[in-house]
Amino acid sequence: MTRRVLLVGIGAGDPDHLTLGAVRALNRADVVFLVDKGPVAEDLRARRRALLDRVVEPGRTPRVVERTLTAVRDRDRSRYDAGVEAWRAERLDAYRDLVAGLGPDETGAFLVWGDPTLYDGTLAILDDARAGVDFEVEVVPGISSVSALAARHGVALNRVGEAVQLTTGRRLVDEGLPAGVDNVVVLLDAHEAWRVLDEDLHIWWGAFVGMEREILVSGRLGDVRDEIAERRERAEQEAGWMFDTYLVRRRPQAGP
Amino acid sequence: MTRRVLLVGIGAGDPDHLTLGAVRALNRADVVFLVDKGPVAEDLRARRRALLDRVVEPGRTPRVVERTLTAVRDRDRSRYDAGVEAWRAERLDAYRDLVAGLGPDETGAFLVWGDPTLYDGTLAILDDARAGVDFEVEVVPGISSVSALAARHGVALNRVGEAVQLTTGRRLVDEGLPAGVDNVVVLLDAHEAWRVLDEDLHIWWGAFVGMEREILVSGRLGDVRDEIAERRERAEQEAGWMFDTYLVRRRPQAGP
Repeated sequence: MTRRVLLVGIGAGDPDHLTLGAVRALNRADVVFLVDKGPVAEDLRARRRALLDRVVEPGRTPRVVERTLTAVRDRDRSRYDAGVEAWRAERLDAYRDLVAGLGPDETGAFLVWGDPTLYDGTLAILDDARAGVDFEVEVVPGISSVSALAARHGVALNRVGEAVQLTTGRRLVDEGLPAGVDNVVVLLDAHEAWRVLDEDLHIWWGAFVGMEREILVSGRLGDVRDEIAERRERAEQEAGWMFDTYLVRRRPQAGP
Repeated sequence: MTRRVLLVGIGAGDPDHLTLGAVRALNRADVVFLVDKGPVAEDLRARRRALLDRVVEPGRTPRVVERTLTAVRDRDRSRYDAGVEAWRAERLDAYRDLVAGLGPDETGAFLVWGDPTLYDGTLAILDDARAGVDFEVEVVPGISSVSALAARHGVALNRVGEAVQLTTGRRLVDEGLPAGVDNVVVLLDAHEAWRVLDEDLHIWWGAFVGMEREILVSGRLGDVRDEIAERRERAEQEAGWMFDTYLVRRRPQAGP
């Protein structure tokens, strides 16, 4: 008898991103954990509940356990690392607590936006939580915001034989565009790195990709930078939060 | 009235990778194109047919049009580029022909393994095919072999704040491991780059991930290299083809 934890990738926001495996996982779960944080919490929790209502079969009624985390990461660079640590500590406590609340042969499911293996900390935190409680983990892959972005723009992440790097806005601001790779996808860009990148890059930018309020902008960065700035700011004000991702590509003269 | 082409990501081999959006797309299609190539063709075509049988609703009967491509890419470096060109030209002709065979308001679906925006040439070839025939493209994102690999190993592609680069075996053999990035995922590795990489890297290797004959090996590369070599060779002999993907990570001393 072992507690079982499913990390279920639920895609980037569009309910059509759910996989048949995710649907099956949600129907296997005894408990579904909904953990959210900050100003995003209410909106995202409603979306997860809607996904559950859509795919959980009548008669299956997993208990839903909600938890809202309060530690907020600070965009101020001097306090950033301390903020990340506090937030991680709060998550670790919360996740260990949630998993320990499972019965000895029960299965609990964490719903993870995008893909649980890409720019999501849940897997690492569950690894740490193993120190306090015994359980097995199974990962159900999901459509990442990166795949969703490229699909909506109808653009491949790489041209034939090329490499693509996925990185954070912070790394771009600190280190510039990585050398030796022509395709760079940027996630977690609170630092708005697109403001300082080379204007001759081609950019495929998206906010809230897969949701009703999706915005897509693409073109030579120098030509579309103002449009991105304006639409991003307006959308953030309207939604109360922002989730954007983008691909930039060198050598636009070769065509997208 | 416009011809419509759906590029449907069908995941890495596990039918559970199919998304609800892919299921919907296959049920919308008037025609499904099954294009395969080389020694893989028969096995993969049977798998695609099984997927269709599983998800297409009774009463919906899209026409299935099969095409087997014959140009084979040559692993010999001196003939590699010429082989790629011949193969690409054959694909372009075939795809243009298939799309032109659609009625003026029909929808055709290409089933693409993995995610159509990651290391798959279909999107670029359809862009070129536009020169000869008028149609619209819609991409349905899928679970890539990269996501599937990480999920099956239960490992994140990147640690917090780190970058991850997706690249080809050929680039690794030519240029070595890219600088400035600690996580590297290798696809299309006919060159078996894992044979020449630093033995202190940690590797998460997988072949036929998501299929019945899936093989997973992980550990310090120096410790598992022989095991990978043996199991890979045996599996390739048994299956008649090989599809493997892997993640390598620097600084294994920090723990996976």
